[in-house]
Amino acid sequence: MSKAIVLFSGGLDSTTCLEIARSEGFEPCPLVFSYHQRHSIEVEAAEKIISKLGINHYLTLKVPLQEIGGSALTRDMEVPEYSDAEHGSEIPVTYVPARNTIFLSYALGWAEVLGSSDIFIGVNVVDYSGYPDCRPEYIKAFENMANLATKKSATGELTYKIHTPLIYMSKGEIIQKGIELGIDYSWTHSCYDPDENGLACGKCDSCVLRKKGFSEAGMEDPTLYRE
Amino acid sequence: MSKAIVLFSGGLDSTTCLEIARSEGFEPCPLVFSYHQRHSIEVEAAEKIISKLGINHYLTLKVPLQEIGGSALTRDMEVPEYSDAEHGSEIPVTYVPARNTIFLSYALGWAEVLGSSDIFIGVNVVDYSGYPDCRPEYIKAFENMANLATKKSATGELTYKIHTPLIYMSKGEIIQKGIELGIDYSWTHSCYDPDENGLACGKCDSCVLRKKGFSEAGMEDPTLYRE
Repeated sequence: MSKAIVLFSGGLDSTTCLEIARSEGFEPCPLVFSYHQRHSIEVEAAEKIISKLGINHYLTLKVPLQEIGGSALTRDMEVPEYSDAEHGSEIPVTYVPARNTIFLSYALGWAEVLGSSDIFIGVNVVDYSGYPDCRPEYIKAFENMANLATKKSATGELTYKIHTPLIYMSKGEIIQKGIELGIDYSWTHSCYDPDENGLACGKCDSCVLRKKGFSEAGMEDPTLYRE
Repeated sequence: MSKAIVLFSGGLDSTTCLEIARSEGFEPCPLVFSYHQRHSIEVEAAEKIISKLGINHYLTLKVPLQEIGGSALTRDMEVPEYSDAEHGSEIPVTYVPARNTIFLSYALGWAEVLGSSDIFIGVNVVDYSGYPDCRPEYIKAFENMANLATKKSATGELTYKIHTPLIYMSKGEIIQKGIELGIDYSWTHSCYDPDENGLACGKCDSCVLRKKGFSEAGMEDPTLYRE
């Protein structure tokens, strides 16, 4: 089986992305980032899911995004509640400068070392927060750059492909697909601002999009909310 | 003065690159990486030069490239001696997978936070080790990607430029330029494999190219070699 690097946060999207990679015949190698995210429970949750799925080949990297700052997810700005009026009108403060570029760059390095040409990322442009580094034109430009960047791409040994299986799916479709693939979504978390017990706020963009997804899919939402 | 991020290792090339940025009217903001490089003296040397130059606005980031591995500079492979016969025939084991992509990605994030549209990197394709992520086509592809990646590029607030002032210069020309700009090259180091006292090996690619540069420039080499 060919190895594929899967950017993995333990959330709904990246867990579905991982199972899609597996269903396409790849051996998924999750790459997890501890980046001083407000939701530090994320890394624990991600590693727990990796263990439950019986995956041995993964990597958790500690990367200093808090030193760069500029985001409500890495500094002490407040995470705003979801607002229908504002949604889509501008990129929110939960945007983390260059996050996907930094994460994909590490994935590229690890892919080269593993001899893998495939990287999966669960970006989406339907039910999303408007982050620029989720758009297909961005992903294509990263792929072009990757194919000039490394020893194995320069010598023609590898041609990298950035897979984005969720990119045009609604949250409801993502959940339906995941359930077909046997995912237990009670393992996953999405909240940008969970409390110390891991209970989700139910109000941030990520929680609201997640709730909407379960409702669209006609499924019960297994998430534990704090109110 | 506009700020510019300068990728900075304290070596001959990046020090020259920093002074070129300053001579072009930018306020240089050095970005230093501690990446478990074999030559850990590099970070100290870089910070010492930054202090001697009276620069206050800089950032040193600790990034886990050793977890990815795949290089003589981050793992325990031996650093080979320079060989004329082998030079240019293949990419050497001192290549670090995706290093410039990872470094430029952090620079992009920091640039966005500082409101800077300019990033300087001292890559060179004349007297170099054949690394793919030093080539102009790679740099251009990174720039294209950067201009789709961030909030400020997506909204048209910033258009990033990756400056590579050294790219077509010989090592001798780089040194001549630096001396015109007042650089004291005894502060800089280049060796891939210095000893515990910081003395250069005199035999690796980087030392050999540096020696050749001083000879071409008709200047005395201020480097302290261990034999």
